[in-house]
Amino acid sequence: MADKRSPLAPKDIPTLPPIAGVRLCSVASGMRYPDRDDLMLVEFDRSAAVAGVFTKSQTAAAPILWCRAALGKGKGKARALVVNSGNANAFTGRDGENAVARTVAAAAKIVGCSRREVFVSSTGVIGEQLPVDRLTNALLKLRGKLSEQAWPDVAAAIMTTDTFSKVATRRAKIGETEIIINGIAKGSGMIAPDMATMLGYIFTDAKIPPDVLQSLLVSANNRSFNSITVDGDTSTSDTVLAFATGRARHSKITSPRDAVLKSFRAAFDEVLIDLAQQIVRDGEGATKFVTVTVTGAASSRAARIIALTIGNSPLVKTAIAGEDANWGRVVMAVGKSGQRADRDRLEIKIGGVKITENGRVRDDYDEVPVAAHMKGDEVLIEVDVGIGKGRATIWTCDLTHGYIKINADYRS
Amino acid sequence: MADKRSPLAPKDIPTLPPIAGVRLCSVASGMRYPDRDDLMLVEFDRSAAVAGVFTKSQTAAAPILWCRAALGKGKGKARALVVNSGNANAFTGRDGENAVARTVAAAAKIVGCSRREVFVSSTGVIGEQLPVDRLTNALLKLRGKLSEQAWPDVAAAIMTTDTFSKVATRRAKIGETEIIINGIAKGSGMIAPDMATMLGYIFTDAKIPPDVLQSLLVSANNRSFNSITVDGDTSTSDTVLAFATGRARHSKITSPRDAVLKSFRAAFDEVLIDLAQQIVRDGEGATKFVTVTVTGAASSRAARIIALTIGNSPLVKTAIAGEDANWGRVVMAVGKSGQRADRDRLEIKIGGVKITENGRVRDDYDEVPVAAHMKGDEVLIEVDVGIGKGRATIWTCDLTHGYIKINADYRS
Repeated sequence: MADKRSPLAPKDIPTLPPIAGVRLCSVASGMRYPDRDDLMLVEFDRSAAVAGVFTKSQTAAAPILWCRAALGKGKGKARALVVNSGNANAFTGRDGENAVARTVAAAAKIVGCSRREVFVSSTGVIGEQLPVDRLTNALLKLRGKLSEQAWPDVAAAIMTTDTFSKVATRRAKIGETEIIINGIAKGSGMIAPDMATMLGYIFTDAKIPPDVLQSLLVSANNRSFNSITVDGDTSTSDTVLAFATGRARHSKITSPRDAVLKSFRAAFDEVLIDLAQQIVRDGEGATKFVTVTVTGAASSRAARIIALTIGNSPLVKTAIAGEDANWGRVVMAVGKSGQRADRDRLEIKIGGVKITENGRVRDDYDEVPVAAHMKGDEVLIEVDVGIGKGRATIWTCDLTHGYIKINADYRS
Repeated sequence: MADKRSPLAPKDIPTLPPIAGVRLCSVASGMRYPDRDDLMLVEFDRSAAVAGVFTKSQTAAAPILWCRAALGKGKGKARALVVNSGNANAFTGRDGENAVARTVAAAAKIVGCSRREVFVSSTGVIGEQLPVDRLTNALLKLRGKLSEQAWPDVAAAIMTTDTFSKVATRRAKIGETEIIINGIAKGSGMIAPDMATMLGYIFTDAKIPPDVLQSLLVSANNRSFNSITVDGDTSTSDTVLAFATGRARHSKITSPRDAVLKSFRAAFDEVLIDLAQQIVRDGEGATKFVTVTVTGAASSRAARIIALTIGNSPLVKTAIAGEDANWGRVVMAVGKSGQRADRDRLEIKIGGVKITENGRVRDDYDEVPVAAHMKGDEVLIEVDVGIGKGRATIWTCDLTHGYIKINADYRS
């Protein structure tokens, strides 16, 4: 956990309201960090519907393997969530899987549920064995501390190199019933130094079956956590879980396309996008928050690939760090994306100013307002590739000496 | 052109011997750089066989479009090669294509050949119109200067931000006949700041038909220029051309698999690998030359993707800059490559020391010799992913404050 808040951190931190059926708490297990909580427990008073999306890494950490199995196929039920920071339990072999099994068994005993209803995540150093005795001993102390209010504590307990804790909340309606959606997340860089992971947890009192929740989560995840990039690196532990306690009274939901879900879907997307953007704002060494919108692509998937190629390009990111309106590097990134683009219809805007047309820079292009835009905290790059109707927006940050300092100078 | 040679620059610079049928020269056109040559002409006294590989960028520069067309399909003949530095003639619209046409027409007139026998490249700033009058005026001065010896001059004339010029030479035998292969290249970062491009030109006196030369070039290019990465960015102008004057007297060659080509193929590959490694050694801000070898992959293509994913990972590259034996980041990179890997059979070696086995760090792992290895100029990472027999080697460099300085602080 760094000492200094990112300059891009949000100014206002919302208070998360209680959600019926959800109690939480955190504790210091002492597994790595002195003097701070590093373990959190969430208890659902009855089985909550659960959905999840995970890293596509071929070297996924032990907790990921457990959660994937526990989710079942659209039938996931949850009574407990346990998350520790300080140790990722990643690349720890069979011992790592045993550590997960022991954590799950301890939590199931404390909460009084089946093991399959316990979900776990770990974030921190890769490749070190998890000190599982400390974790299970600390878990025992947690039960009596559970409260409906402890959202700020659990959000802080899962931080690693994050410079601020990430929370978001929205209200929505299903029919006439007011619904609450709370979310917490952590992440700073796709992977912080030696640390694995972007984690996100979403909680709601809506009554949504697991298969519908899964469908909503996949869709929202594509527009949020899958649309951010700090350094293009993928963690071994990336996890987003959504829990629906079902305590709200509203009509029965059977499909993610149900019209009654319109307000809920929008609010759910907003919570995920809010959290995802906070992760970018806490990107290692970040000094600029960058929005890249691509239109005119062959498909929305193609648009997202082009946008991410721009957002991942070290040359684009260093130009932004240098406050240089270097649109030539955007042309380069579009070209290398592998997706179709029409050079002669390519239109690039920075800060709303149209720079190119007919496959070249505009004759009357005035760099002054663009240079002024580049000096701000928020940079907007819009690209139309002139092929079709696909569009996508992604968020990223600049690549600075701060990133190198954090990642190269960390252990040395 | 930076003032200071890269610390990784080769100590010995070879002298390139004359090649029968090849004359060269360079001149200062004054299009961008004061007081240095920025334009070079190669003349082949008779039509040489020519082969080429080019950037896959969707926004390829005008000279690329010309060269692709001029190559024909395995029937390419060349009498002239014109290369300028200082302006990439990329993203310059129809005017850029007209500038290529005028350059080609001027060169064809000077040399006395058809336009289709003229090949051109441009490297430098993207998005500025090429000052084609200066270029054609300078070309007129070049004819009288052509010599068989001017290899160092032309290698220097094509530099942009390179800190040293890149040349290589090998001798081979086809039957009893001694053959010479010379190569020159430029590049420093996949793209230098605002500059487009990796360029490579290979010359030989062997008598090899264009279609066979093309096949040899594609194969050698995959093992060399396509196996290096500085920052993962792809230029709009990347070009490698090979020319065979056919002045050597040896048996007729009709297939790239001809047994008599064995020595030639090896030497040809070596020239390309030598040049490619020099580009990495001149990588922007590089302080370490890194070799990544992947074995045990599902195929050689899969192995190359995994190796490039490791070599492109900002987290791996910054760890190397920090001389940190951070093998956990190698695990992460293998995982994100999207290629099959068996976590429990994954074997990682750094500097020849085996670090992992059975999906975890070895119990007797001693970091001391690995830490000592990381302090050297040359870093070796070997990964076996435990799936099949595919193998590949790529070369890269570290990601340092120097890279950020060159790319973020360049215009500001």
